[in-house]
Amino acid sequence: MTDFGTADGYVGELKGVIAARAPGVAVVDIAHDVMPQDVDGARLALARYWRRWPEGTVHLVVVDPEVGGERLALAVHSDGRWLVGPDNGVLSPALLLPAATAVALPVPADAAPTFHGRDVFAPAAARLATGTPLEQLGPVVAAPVIRRSPEAHRLADGRIGGEVIAVDRFGNCATNLRGKPGQVVEVGGLRVPVVRTYADAPDGACVALTGSSGWLEVAVRGGSAAHRLGIARGAMVVLG
Amino acid sequence: MTDFGTADGYVGELKGVIAARAPGVAVVDIAHDVMPQDVDGARLALARYWRRWPEGTVHLVVVDPEVGGERLALAVHSDGRWLVGPDNGVLSPALLLPAATAVALPVPADAAPTFHGRDVFAPAAARLATGTPLEQLGPVVAAPVIRRSPEAHRLADGRIGGEVIAVDRFGNCATNLRGKPGQVVEVGGLRVPVVRTYADAPDGACVALTGSSGWLEVAVRGGSAAHRLGIARGAMVVLG
Amino acid sequence: MTDFGTADGYVGELKGVIAARAPGVAVVDIAHDVMPQDVDGARLALARYWRRWPEGTVHLVVVDPEVGGERLALAVHSDGRWLVGPDNGVLSPALLLPAATAVALPVPADAAPTFHGRDVFAPAAARLATGTPLEQLGPVVAAPVIRRSPEAHRLADGRIGGEVIAVDRFGNCATNLRGKPGQVVEVGGLRVPVVRTYADAPDGACVALTGSSGWLEVAVRGGSAAHRLGIARGAMVVLG
Repeated sequence: MTDFGTADGYVGELKGVIAARAPGVAVVDIAHDVMPQDVDGARLALARYWRRWPEGTVHLVVVDPEVGGERLALAVHSDGRWLVGPDNGVLSPALLLPAATAVALPVPADAAPTFHGRDVFAPAAARLATGTPLEQLGPVVAAPVIRRSPEAHRLADGRIGGEVIAVDRFGNCATNLRGKPGQVVEVGGLRVPVVRTYADAPDGACVALTGSSGWLEVAVRGGSAAHRLGIARGAMVVLG
Repeated sequence: MTDFGTADGYVGELKGVIAARAPGVAVVDIAHDVMPQDVDGARLALARYWRRWPEGTVHLVVVDPEVGGERLALAVHSDGRWLVGPDNGVLSPALLLPAATAVALPVPADAAPTFHGRDVFAPAAARLATGTPLEQLGPVVAAPVIRRSPEAHRLADGRIGGEVIAVDRFGNCATNLRGKPGQVVEVGGLRVPVVRTYADAPDGACVALTGSSGWLEVAVRGGSAAHRLGIARGAMVVLG
Repeated sequence: MTDFGTADGYVGELKGVIAARAPGVAVVDIAHDVMPQDVDGARLALARYWRRWPEGTVHLVVVDPEVGGERLALAVHSDGRWLVGPDNGVLSPALLLPAATAVALPVPADAAPTFHGRDVFAPAAARLATGTPLEQLGPVVAAPVIRRSPEAHRLADGRIGGEVIAVDRFGNCATNLRGKPGQVVEVGGLRVPVVRTYADAPDGACVALTGSSGWLEVAVRGGSAAHRLGIARGAMVVLG
């Protein structure tokens, strides 16, 4: 997963490094159109998918606005999978498990200060994929950077206040609220009912429902809730 | 093929499910930027490619506006290939062959009603890819939903009337007409000649030619016919 | 690498042809969102990645504005890799090596004049990937088309004049200048310092730095230099 896009040669360079150093290892694209430098978007995406993959998988994540600066470069072992990426919180979903171990990857003197994906992270992913033990990659990092989504909280009037955490390609707005059919969500000046699925709403209606990661999301059947309500990541939502 | 885009974690979840359940099976991306919920666009794309792949291929197609509703979930065998996707007509190119067989996939009680791609279709694709016979996946569906492109028809003046069926990234407008060099197509208020290939037109000229699927398409050499003519899917075209 | 995009079935057709003719050969996506018909963009992308891949790799590049016309179709051997694509200069990075060999691929009578990617290039890539020697694919081409980026030159005042060669997804503007920290670049009406890495600039500042292919690029930390300076490919830059 990167934020490189697929209009030029950066993904090709990164994959070439892996192909050269880990021959025969299958490399699978997750997403290269993460919004440029959107560490939180990549973190939430990783949270969705990393444990769907079998043990032994190496997840390479390069969304790295501070490349070339002081931030560490990490390789991580967590719940039987490996992860490689910058120490900016993007790997938090794996780092938050109690048994996670992180090490700091050395940055070679000839690494391009603008492209650690190619010169630091891909080589480390190739080493892990070919059996190098994590501890041979670098010294343990005791306190890697953790980022968390904001948590919902109880308001003075007893309702639960949260916010929009992510907006997907369909305009569905995932929140940090949990709820169930029969409740009501207030968002973008509207009060929308919580339903079980899109099909429980008339076409074009705005509803809330539990999305595939377990959180309430606001959706318009056959349309975009983000456009309809004029909302984006960070918009306030209230349940109850 | 999905309409999930590649900016977040949905494709990664779906592929992770396959990787976990069908280890060693190669998964190949077809297209994830199908216009959101564009069943016809996905159907036409599938028509182009599904039989180019060798027998034994499993085609997974998730463009599913009615997810969580009453529509069935299908697995199909047709012409030596398998296909998995919603019963909304998107699989029509394979279902239209006389020997096609379709079965209805059960939806597990814990499937997310918003993401059958992950919880219904990907697991079924993995089962087919690892050798489970189609009939073990569910009961036969006698009359799956079929969608067809509109057909061209003879007009009162003897000419053939059709329409634009698809517009590609280059602005080329594929139609439901067949024709040959020397004929003329009327479209967007212009009369454009049918030529053999782009190179038979001066740069910037609007022409029609037989595209790679055998249908006439309207094109501007070095430009976008859709922009030039101000047309989109559904625009009227007349041949003769 | 193609300019087909990933919204329809063209990439799927091309990969299907390879899957059918070279079973078991791994096909890896490089980039399908190259700007439509942008031969120079694809050439620069190829320059970045083609030698990162191990010897024996077959690089298939289809950015082909003159498809169906007089331009030749090429297969190339260079530095242990193979390349397949149109004779429009897109393969120049490989063709420029002294030991490169190029042959002209025959165009079958039934090839679609609009889609040599499917009917000429993919079949040739499959043959090379399955061991067919280059010389069996067609007659040697003595002088394939070469395209080069413009070169920087000394100005009357002793400074070095160059231009922006490529703009990436982050708005970074790669130039044809080489430089080092302490120098100054004049671009878009601004004078910006050459630094070592993004982290050496305050957030939001415009700087120049040596990018990962060795050339100076103009960047805004946490932003887009292209937007900030209102510049695009071809914009003038002066060093000194």
